[in-house]
Amino acid sequence: MSHVLDGIRVLDFSRVFAAPDSTQVFGDLGADVIKIETPDRGDSCRYLGVTREELEAIGPPSPSFRAFNRNKRSIALDLGAEAGRRVARRLVADADILVNNFRPGTMERWGLGYDELKEAHPRLIYCDFTAYGSEGPLSHIGANDLALQAHSGLMSITGEEGGGPVRAGAAIIDLHASLAIVSGVLAALYHREKTGRGQRVETSLLQSSAHFLSYFYQDYWLTGNLHERMGTANHLSVPNQAFPTSDGYVVIIAPSDEMWKRCAQALDAEKLDVERFSTSSERLRLRKEVIAAMSQVTMRFTKHELHEKLSAARVNVSIVQDIGEAADHPQLRAIGGVFDFETGGAPHRYIATPFRLSETPGTMRSPPPGLGEQTDEILRGAGYSAAEIDALRADGAFGET
Amino acid sequence: MSHVLDGIRVLDFSRVFAAPDSTQVFGDLGADVIKIETPDRGDSCRYLGVTREELEAIGPPSPSFRAFNRNKRSIALDLGAEAGRRVARRLVADADILVNNFRPGTMERWGLGYDELKEAHPRLIYCDFTAYGSEGPLSHIGANDLALQAHSGLMSITGEEGGGPVRAGAAIIDLHASLAIVSGVLAALYHREKTGRGQRVETSLLQSSAHFLSYFYQDYWLTGNLHERMGTANHLSVPNQAFPTSDGYVVIIAPSDEMWKRCAQALDAEKLDVERFSTSSERLRLRKEVIAAMSQVTMRFTKHELHEKLSAARVNVSIVQDIGEAADHPQLRAIGGVFDFETGGAPHRYIATPFRLSETPGTMRSPPPGLGEQTDEILRGAGYSAAEIDALRADGAFGET
Repeated sequence: MSHVLDGIRVLDFSRVFAAPDSTQVFGDLGADVIKIETPDRGDSCRYLGVTREELEAIGPPSPSFRAFNRNKRSIALDLGAEAGRRVARRLVADADILVNNFRPGTMERWGLGYDELKEAHPRLIYCDFTAYGSEGPLSHIGANDLALQAHSGLMSITGEEGGGPVRAGAAIIDLHASLAIVSGVLAALYHREKTGRGQRVETSLLQSSAHFLSYFYQDYWLTGNLHERMGTANHLSVPNQAFPTSDGYVVIIAPSDEMWKRCAQALDAEKLDVERFSTSSERLRLRKEVIAAMSQVTMRFTKHELHEKLSAARVNVSIVQDIGEAADHPQLRAIGGVFDFETGGAPHRYIATPFRLSETPGTMRSPPPGLGEQTDEILRGAGYSAAEIDALRADGAFGET
Repeated sequence: MSHVLDGIRVLDFSRVFAAPDSTQVFGDLGADVIKIETPDRGDSCRYLGVTREELEAIGPPSPSFRAFNRNKRSIALDLGAEAGRRVARRLVADADILVNNFRPGTMERWGLGYDELKEAHPRLIYCDFTAYGSEGPLSHIGANDLALQAHSGLMSITGEEGGGPVRAGAAIIDLHASLAIVSGVLAALYHREKTGRGQRVETSLLQSSAHFLSYFYQDYWLTGNLHERMGTANHLSVPNQAFPTSDGYVVIIAPSDEMWKRCAQALDAEKLDVERFSTSSERLRLRKEVIAAMSQVTMRFTKHELHEKLSAARVNVSIVQDIGEAADHPQLRAIGGVFDFETGGAPHRYIATPFRLSETPGTMRSPPPGLGEQTDEILRGAGYSAAEIDALRADGAFGET
């Protein structure tokens, strides 16, 4: 099967979530992704999010490492040693794309910054992924997903009405940044195909978060509105939130007057299909009344009954599922959203590439690598002889000998 | 200035958030984006999220429409009328990329489905963006961002510990899907440049949400873990959450033992830098104690004092900002994250393209268009004569005459 990125090599100096996820997408699309890891423990994501006991029970690496590192080869390289950096610089010569997420200045200190590499490698596409970008008053400050949920204002609009801040439960800013990297790098690759020239691609958790909040910022800039937390509701329309049922929650969203009418008639025409609730502006004004009346009605049904009733009436409805119900829901599999891949004789599931290409789909071809699993293979592929590899090892290129 | 997508034309049949945001990125990169809108009211996003009074005060369109629709031209076309569909099919002839977010089957009913178009237009890149994908048991059900926050399990891990579900305050699944569209379409465009062949690109709110939750699903599949809401905390490490200060909240994240030590010593070595808290596994086990001790200390400072103190100690720290503080923070502007653009004699700000390209940066060249503002210009560009345009108008191609 042909892939979009057949013949493209990615040199991946990144760790943890966002940037490794982006290079996994390149791997899905056919690129040869070389993951450079520190020799001692490798990407710290290998141990993240599970207890030692859980990790022993499932066998390493961690679930999150598995989620973000298929279709890669791993080389253990000590970038703190000159011998390690020398190898890295040699690997750059065969790379089309380089991705790193070190703090601003780190790659430069190692002689691996863009300005240093671009002259010898004018076709190189070089991606700097940072927390707050490489300039400005916060550029030197470390941050992660939660830090940007706080900084961006997302936490100020997430949580119970009148309550304190709450985080969105997944690392959404991290993973959004992954697709900003993918988008930027693919744009640069298309440009290179037309012009022969590479360039530098930059993005950051800050830009990822600002993209999420863009319409709130625009609203604030134009109207001065500072929206606040509203639990499961928002300021756009009513109903547009979670409602209780006899066995859990459903969300119901009926923004247009036509959809609201269908919703009211499907649920309880007498109680809900009243003149006072018939226009969207009145439903916004009478929000509390609408919600109270709706909740009394929804409590009479199970979540599955409501889902059936409202989806038949062409009203936006969804069940509030837990992680397991969501992961195992047949819909995801029906659209090719799950890769099945056997590893060590056991079947494993992975969430697929987040988009589908009819002629050149993303595929899973190899499981997440062990730390340094392909070190020698990668070095031989780069033209190093066995003797040279031994000499590098003695020089500490691959960590403690 | 040259742009990556100079000479590329995008035919945009999409409405509201995700897909319009994706075509805005194409516009930023230089594409000519033609937005096809219904003649009566156009994209409903034009009125979304503000009261009638607010909209009159700022002048239309709405803040969210402005956030997602720069660098486009608008044509008002009635796709319910055969004359309108005929024009759409003619516009396809000059398009490189087509994006739509109608329900599965709608474009097909209008003679605008991929299977019908691909033979005559083998270079066309055709993107179907839907809620749950185009196959499977839920494919016929309408949904929006909140519905997928519910379905995906995100709401089951967002909210106060022991409390009910809460939504992430922004339409994160929608906007994440935008970059999945951008990624998929750019991959297809690169492939076309190499092979001459277009293809179909598909993604959905469901795939966007699954990408966010991938590591939770992986954890569940491997360990059976069903994570639950933890307020501002998560299960990965301690401290990793919001803490109260004398004038608001900060988030503090110190996952490694080294960073924790720096954090403890910077704040209150006597109270926090104790043997019992020194390893990450012990901090996870003694979570409540660590949080309580930290909170007592953080309350003694203002949020800015804590930010200064902890960032100097190289600890991940961020202030929980409101929307206005975030929008106006100088860091965003320092990294080129804001486009300034004058419209109607007044200065306006827009959140920039979510990634930066050193040689071919995204730019803002035109403000969000009025409904049908370029209808005649677009038709003339497609080769229609004035008489033909009049005839089409009489046939109802542009809505009621």
